[in-house]
Amino acid sequence: MSRKINVGIVGLGRMGKAYAQNLAWKMKDVVLIAACSLSEEERKYASESLLITSVYNDYDLMLETPGLEAVFVVSSTDMHADQIMKALEKGLHVFSEKPLAISMEACTRVQKVADRYPHLKTAVGFVRRYDKSYMYAKQKIDEGLIGQPFLVKSQTIDKDTVTDFQITYVNKSGGIFHDYNVHDIDLTRWLLSSEFKEVHAMGGAYKHKRFAELGDADNVMTSCQLENGSMAVIIASRTAMHGHDTYTEVVGTLGSLRIGRPAGKNRVEIYDRHGARKECLDSFMERFEDAFLTMSNDFIDCIIYDRTPQCTIADATKATEAAIAFTRSFKESRSIKVKEL
Amino acid sequence: MSRKINVGIVGLGRMGKAYAQNLAWKMKDVVLIAACSLSEEERKYASESLLITSVYNDYDLMLETPGLEAVFVVSSTDMHADQIMKALEKGLHVFSEKPLAISMEACTRVQKVADRYPHLKTAVGFVRRYDKSYMYAKQKIDEGLIGQPFLVKSQTIDKDTVTDFQITYVNKSGGIFHDYNVHDIDLTRWLLSSEFKEVHAMGGAYKHKRFAELGDADNVMTSCQLENGSMAVIIASRTAMHGHDTYTEVVGTLGSLRIGRPAGKNRVEIYDRHGARKECLDSFMERFEDAFLTMSNDFIDCIIYDRTPQCTIADATKATEAAIAFTRSFKESRSIKVKEL
Amino acid sequence: MSRKINVGIVGLGRMGKAYAQNLAWKMKDVVLIAACSLSEEERKYASESLLITSVYNDYDLMLETPGLEAVFVVSSTDMHADQIMKALEKGLHVFSEKPLAISMEACTRVQKVADRYPHLKTAVGFVRRYDKSYMYAKQKIDEGLIGQPFLVKSQTIDKDTVTDFQITYVNKSGGIFHDYNVHDIDLTRWLLSSEFKEVHAMGGAYKHKRFAELGDADNVMTSCQLENGSMAVIIASRTAMHGHDTYTEVVGTLGSLRIGRPAGKNRVEIYDRHGARKECLDSFMERFEDAFLTMSNDFIDCIIYDRTPQCTIADATKATEAAIAFTRSFKESRSIKVKEL
Amino acid sequence: MSRKINVGIVGLGRMGKAYAQNLAWKMKDVVLIAACSLSEEERKYASESLLITSVYNDYDLMLETPGLEAVFVVSSTDMHADQIMKALEKGLHVFSEKPLAISMEACTRVQKVADRYPHLKTAVGFVRRYDKSYMYAKQKIDEGLIGQPFLVKSQTIDKDTVTDFQITYVNKSGGIFHDYNVHDIDLTRWLLSSEFKEVHAMGGAYKHKRFAELGDADNVMTSCQLENGSMAVIIASRTAMHGHDTYTEVVGTLGSLRIGRPAGKNRVEIYDRHGARKECLDSFMERFEDAFLTMSNDFIDCIIYDRTPQCTIADATKATEAAIAFTRSFKESRSIKVKEL
Repeated sequence: MSRKINVGIVGLGRMGKAYAQNLAWKMKDVVLIAACSLSEEERKYASESLLITSVYNDYDLMLETPGLEAVFVVSSTDMHADQIMKALEKGLHVFSEKPLAISMEACTRVQKVADRYPHLKTAVGFVRRYDKSYMYAKQKIDEGLIGQPFLVKSQTIDKDTVTDFQITYVNKSGGIFHDYNVHDIDLTRWLLSSEFKEVHAMGGAYKHKRFAELGDADNVMTSCQLENGSMAVIIASRTAMHGHDTYTEVVGTLGSLRIGRPAGKNRVEIYDRHGARKECLDSFMERFEDAFLTMSNDFIDCIIYDRTPQCTIADATKATEAAIAFTRSFKESRSIKVKEL
Repeated sequence: MSRKINVGIVGLGRMGKAYAQNLAWKMKDVVLIAACSLSEEERKYASESLLITSVYNDYDLMLETPGLEAVFVVSSTDMHADQIMKALEKGLHVFSEKPLAISMEACTRVQKVADRYPHLKTAVGFVRRYDKSYMYAKQKIDEGLIGQPFLVKSQTIDKDTVTDFQITYVNKSGGIFHDYNVHDIDLTRWLLSSEFKEVHAMGGAYKHKRFAELGDADNVMTSCQLENGSMAVIIASRTAMHGHDTYTEVVGTLGSLRIGRPAGKNRVEIYDRHGARKECLDSFMERFEDAFLTMSNDFIDCIIYDRTPQCTIADATKATEAAIAFTRSFKESRSIKVKEL
Repeated sequence: MSRKINVGIVGLGRMGKAYAQNLAWKMKDVVLIAACSLSEEERKYASESLLITSVYNDYDLMLETPGLEAVFVVSSTDMHADQIMKALEKGLHVFSEKPLAISMEACTRVQKVADRYPHLKTAVGFVRRYDKSYMYAKQKIDEGLIGQPFLVKSQTIDKDTVTDFQITYVNKSGGIFHDYNVHDIDLTRWLLSSEFKEVHAMGGAYKHKRFAELGDADNVMTSCQLENGSMAVIIASRTAMHGHDTYTEVVGTLGSLRIGRPAGKNRVEIYDRHGARKECLDSFMERFEDAFLTMSNDFIDCIIYDRTPQCTIADATKATEAAIAFTRSFKESRSIKVKEL
Repeated sequence: MSRKINVGIVGLGRMGKAYAQNLAWKMKDVVLIAACSLSEEERKYASESLLITSVYNDYDLMLETPGLEAVFVVSSTDMHADQIMKALEKGLHVFSEKPLAISMEACTRVQKVADRYPHLKTAVGFVRRYDKSYMYAKQKIDEGLIGQPFLVKSQTIDKDTVTDFQITYVNKSGGIFHDYNVHDIDLTRWLLSSEFKEVHAMGGAYKHKRFAELGDADNVMTSCQLENGSMAVIIASRTAMHGHDTYTEVVGTLGSLRIGRPAGKNRVEIYDRHGARKECLDSFMERFEDAFLTMSNDFIDCIIYDRTPQCTIADATKATEAAIAFTRSFKESRSIKVKEL
């Protein structure tokens, strides 16, 4: 129990910093010994604020850090697959942020490498599965509270903070379905215990026209048929004014669960000239702050106690497959069968 | 069933108009044949908008209107008692807005006159007892859902629309305890099935100092012990920014009921840059619009079907007694036993 | 203003009784002089409870009632069109419950007859447009509160009270899309100011398998593209355990509105061993009780003041057209373009 | 920043275990090196689950543990004062659970000892000040959002899990005002920036009569006047069926804040045959889980960075003073001026 895992992190952007702060300050079984970033500002942050001694701008060099046991990959989406494979090949456990990749080819390559190192732990960060409210809902479903679930409505809605960064990041992220809905896709598989069969996406750049120029959208909706006959409707938005609003509803034959209400920051209601109101969450990082820590701790526990992480490469591959189908349906304006892909 | 009652109304201010509109346009068993007001504008409204032919500025004359069977007294508080007694003495049924009066002497006089005319219906307008939510709560309590109730928290909170009228009306209304809390007092008696024993009031003119000059307050709170050992805390406010917010909580040994939530106008939530919000009710008239109609219809039914109205002169006298105790406690800054009065 | 309209009603089932009670007891400008039903029990109710003297089992005879000016058609869906046309041909104003019909051919025939009698008022009962919450939302949208609306999510969910009647009524009602979603279809047109272009429906008989035998479903979901580029997802369910739950969300570029929350019966919260809870609405009739009265009064006002009703035959025809597209999409398991029909 | 504080804990009951788990597993700047308990089971827990090597049944011995720098006092209320003073006299920083003591004499003695060791940090665990929602509310008040606050309503309500332990613990805890309302008292002082002037308590053993035998109650309510003219009503209950329900409302001249709503465990709503509901919090430990960790980390930071803790011995003394006044008012059934004490 007194064992501590030596960890390195790659990527120290907004999300990377959040992971790194957990690793440095809140996780008792971890020593954050190495970090890698292409940005000088981020490397400075790693040295000066996180007090990490081994800071790199070359990922390959970081993997050589003596004593390193595990890597957290929190770089941009297009780099996940390669960085995971390299870490595995150096004998390191790997946690990667979602999505695994945006092509089936990349997913398959990662899976093959992972299969060669069955003793190494690999996990992909579908953080919602580690959120108290989602865990509670899943438990209630498993206990039979709502009977047989047959419909999921799930949405990932961000506060409108659209800047040039978010627009140009479309090129790396694979677009709104991969970047936003991959979470809802994973939740739907988990909550309905089935795989996606046919999907029909639509949407547009209703507020920020530049997304359209890049073939992407700021609001999308996808209706889905699953293999076992159940249904889902999955929504993403970049343009909410009230705040981040992740919400999932699961409907069953005996009841339903609504996860994510109220959307408020905390347990305070304000009564003033605007009415009776709650200020809403700023971002998914505020919403899932606890879950990110729980998930990271769980990954470390998987290493220490030799358990298999909950969200595997295979799960992430299934999620990417569905996101590809969503994206193609949107681009071709028609219904897509997942097995067409 | 086809019988219609001929009704007159005295008082056509804001509340009087609301009653008169119900009588004229929404109550099928009523013919509004007469109206009385000291205001020329109000008499003009009666003639032109309500199409009433017999319109008076002299209450005694109105009582002589041929065929008149019942009177609705919606004048200022200081006139209720006399107008009720006069109507009874003319052989007319009487409905009066609350409060009955602000002195025990006036209440007792009305009671004595009413006792001489047992065949005439008298009712006082404790409108909340006719509100769907309060009726539902009372029924749940009677069914035992919350066990033995032992604590009531009740508040009457108005949107801050304080004008000269409201400040000078203090002289006629008897102040905030008679004007606002008489409703909460009646509800507490009804919900706890007991009478007030000892009360301790406090408060101040926290926002509108002129109330203090008149010996009144803009926010008050009174803690109460009831005869059967149960408790109540009763609050009134003239200064809410969000809107009218009547709220009552009843706590029992097996559960509790909260009546008045949410405080929104309707079933719409707004999500915008102010957060997740509901616009709130503007006034008690918006909150109790349906209950005013139900109560008025019920009074007419009591006449047609010879039933006794729910809120009698005796109930109103008990409410006034408690409001006097609240007021004296506030003025003398000490706890008051009701039987001291 | 003192004019009263003489009205007849056809159909005195659950809904018919609700309309008839409003006409008989709550609408001051109406005299309910005639009623028609094929059921002896319903005719007895009309005579004995509603005190109607002219009660028929033959609709043609009712139309001959002397002095009759308007007819309320609240029979089963398959009879609406013929009864509307017959009334018009007798020179009577007609209000009909939704839907107008379940075939375009029937809708078109009614429109042609109505066009021949432009002085007669015709209205179809899309009751939600008369609900305070929906009216408030529409007003806020028109005022620009949420910017440009581009997405509607709307659902009609009934408490599971499925009996043989509801199952066999599928043959007359045209199924769940015509019977339930026609309201959501009308709301979507109204709120997004556009017509349906392409729809994709799915669903099943997840709880009550007998609906499947009749080609219908107990839960359905339809994703929709509108002519102006906006989107909708429309859901219906017959199987909710908590109660009736009509809900509509309108998302715009500057905010969103959620209409129908909370789903509770009233303003009471219960705190007991089941948690913090609200008992929910039993039925759409409890939900829209006020709106049914408002709508009926508005129709009578349209006659008295010579105004055009808000929901015309043309609106109802558009709603039926979309419901036909939904139904075909569901039956053929494919996306349907409305102009294919 | 890499400095770690060596900590001991006394008391390993339900609360003690919660503190100890934070110290052992979640606080990166702490090494939990010692523990003391009179219970063999608790000492075993310390050795086997927390892996603490120095485990004692004698508090004086624990204070001699080499390298010890700070003590967390989480024993029963009657032992707090002595244990705090002993730790200070050994040169150790001390954090103590609330309340400091239940007599002014004990509070004063602790203050005198603390004054002799100004370089040592002392803090008392008014955990709510470290809760995100309370901190947010305080910040909004300080920013002027609600104008001048003049009324606090605050309640501490526990799920009814009354056992022999809770009843007999009354003898050690000082009763419901010291044990429950001391939190509300501290919050009221903090939120209204004033001290208690006069209080009037009432209540009873409405459900569990045995509390009455011990001079205590299961439900109490206290109305309070503060020095600056503002008011408070403070409630405690041991008998809620729905769960733990800590709630505070602050009313000001420009708005109000309600802290603690909704009372649900998490962001999940259940819709089933009981209606629309949220399962509620089981206990204050579930409600304030995060705040306990934040508060403990803050105390350690105060040591490392030489800051003064927020809740001092002086604050705790003021809270005890008010709780004594509440208790005397309840026992003597009369209003009590704090300066009478």
